[in-house]
Amino acid sequence: MTRHVLALTLGDPAGIGPEITAATLARTAGADGHHGVAVGDPAALRRGVQAMGLGVEVRTVDGFDTEPAEGVIDVVDTGVLGEDVPAWGKVDARAGRAAIAAIETATRAALDGEVAGVVTSPINKEAIWAAGSAHLGHTEMLGELTGVTQQDTMFVVRNTAQEGHHLRIFFTTRHVALRTAIEQISQERVGESIRRAHTALQVFGLESPRLAVAALNPHGGENGNFGDEEIVHIGPACVAAREEGLDVSGPVPADSVFHQGLVGRYDGVLSHFHDQGHIPAKTFDFDGTISVTVGLPILRTSVDHGTAFDIAGTGQAGPGTMLSAYLAAVDYAPFVDNIRKAYAP
Amino acid sequence: MTRHVLALTLGDPAGIGPEITAATLARTAGADGHHGVAVGDPAALRRGVQAMGLGVEVRTVDGFDTEPAEGVIDVVDTGVLGEDVPAWGKVDARAGRAAIAAIETATRAALDGEVAGVVTSPINKEAIWAAGSAHLGHTEMLGELTGVTQQDTMFVVRNTAQEGHHLRIFFTTRHVALRTAIEQISQERVGESIRRAHTALQVFGLESPRLAVAALNPHGGENGNFGDEEIVHIGPACVAAREEGLDVSGPVPADSVFHQGLVGRYDGVLSHFHDQGHIPAKTFDFDGTISVTVGLPILRTSVDHGTAFDIAGTGQAGPGTMLSAYLAAVDYAPFVDNIRKAYAP
Repeated sequence: MTRHVLALTLGDPAGIGPEITAATLARTAGADGHHGVAVGDPAALRRGVQAMGLGVEVRTVDGFDTEPAEGVIDVVDTGVLGEDVPAWGKVDARAGRAAIAAIETATRAALDGEVAGVVTSPINKEAIWAAGSAHLGHTEMLGELTGVTQQDTMFVVRNTAQEGHHLRIFFTTRHVALRTAIEQISQERVGESIRRAHTALQVFGLESPRLAVAALNPHGGENGNFGDEEIVHIGPACVAAREEGLDVSGPVPADSVFHQGLVGRYDGVLSHFHDQGHIPAKTFDFDGTISVTVGLPILRTSVDHGTAFDIAGTGQAGPGTMLSAYLAAVDYAPFVDNIRKAYAP
Repeated sequence: MTRHVLALTLGDPAGIGPEITAATLARTAGADGHHGVAVGDPAALRRGVQAMGLGVEVRTVDGFDTEPAEGVIDVVDTGVLGEDVPAWGKVDARAGRAAIAAIETATRAALDGEVAGVVTSPINKEAIWAAGSAHLGHTEMLGELTGVTQQDTMFVVRNTAQEGHHLRIFFTTRHVALRTAIEQISQERVGESIRRAHTALQVFGLESPRLAVAALNPHGGENGNFGDEEIVHIGPACVAAREEGLDVSGPVPADSVFHQGLVGRYDGVLSHFHDQGHIPAKTFDFDGTISVTVGLPILRTSVDHGTAFDIAGTGQAGPGTMLSAYLAAVDYAPFVDNIRKAYAP
């Protein structure tokens, strides 16, 4: 049996990253078929173990090819902080440097095939700026490290009531004002988003993916009575995709398409603006919704929350999303060769 | 112990109304504390019982003050159709007349205090037009019958994991294009919607309601980086409401506010456009999401779906939403005096 090894970055060591990573590794230690290895400063991980009150030993390992041991969680030392870990909950240049080093080490290990994928803990923008990085966050850093310019977000929501069914949610637009998102919707852009989502579903393991495209307006616009984006842009983009032979439904009214997807009618849903896709995912399963970065030549999953400086170090952080992100990476690990081939820069 | 009597209209007899009403009454027959009575044509209800394969007897009763009997579901005969029930799944003027008669009878019974409230099955617009009505649907008919001009929708979603907690969702705008909804958002309109939602929560049984107001833009606009409606309209409306002494939180990013409400942090959430409130409710619990009409001097709940002519008569209709609408009416029946007083025209 193959054992998939995943690298989990500690993120900003002053945030909740070390705690949620420690809890995830403690929960999954000794599992069959997969092995998570933390990447960061062992002292930061030990502090996370302590804050969460976990009964596990932290073992510093030289590389990712180690034999897992009962009650032990492994960390590859990035050697930035030594024993001097910055205070919890504060923006700190050394913490920023540590966060960057963990991402670099984990990403290189994924590019070199030492690990099947990377699961990232949250980082703090200001801390990485204080550390001299000009990047806005993970997206830009990962783009530079892997040489790609186009990345998409794929949200994954598990419906635990439907054995093995994950709904994947894609986005036509990104982090922009709602008005701007509407302006950005065009047949061309929706069409391209459909094709990219369809490719992603195939790369991530579905031979014949069924994709639904959400409508923008209530009731799908009711034949133009409540807005015409369905008639002018979204509908024609769906028709064109079907003519290309893709299994694409829609536009489907957005207040039923996510339910239908979750109960198994679709494998993926293309939403058109940030909250249209985020609201259903996070309302359905707040802790179970995780993000997969599509377009990188490596497998990368991540949590959809921040460093939570306000509760860092208190042991209150819920590790549910990090655990879900880790398990999603385990699920997708068999498709790493697909990912590498499809998204080679 | 008070027994609350609720009137359930059969809706369009050619649609799934008789089937979902029959199933709901069969499921709740003999319950303690409440008694549902159908309103419509007994032959239509009997056909619904048959289509659903239910082992209950249909009893025609003269009024709503009858003693429930084991294995029996009651119907107040509106006398429109006799034994000649229109074919399933077709627009029919007689079916439209029957639908109208049921709403009139049930509404009068509620106004006269014979029943605690009304639960309505779906009707078909074209059928009621064919029957000579100029109304668009329930809203206009109920407005005319009760003499009110302003009605709001309150969505109710139960989180069955949180004993007794219902999240109620309100709307700043109605059935309009998304672009139009954004245009309609103003401090004044949001402020008024906050006050109306707050009143509704009190009328429907919460002494000190906790209301959250959703943001419009992703991440609540991130201080104006992604849209300024939070800064210009929504935020000031929330501040003004708090200054009036209302327990109002927000603007809260829309991708977390519904989750927070469902786990008990808020009693209600004000959403700003149709899908912003419909998506989370129907994704979280498609069958359990029901609609309460706020502003009428009677209690009225309803399903949030149509007549489903394509499956009417096949027994495939899921009665879950009608059952939820009925049970919500049972829950709210103790507040009928509040409702009558607060919303007297």
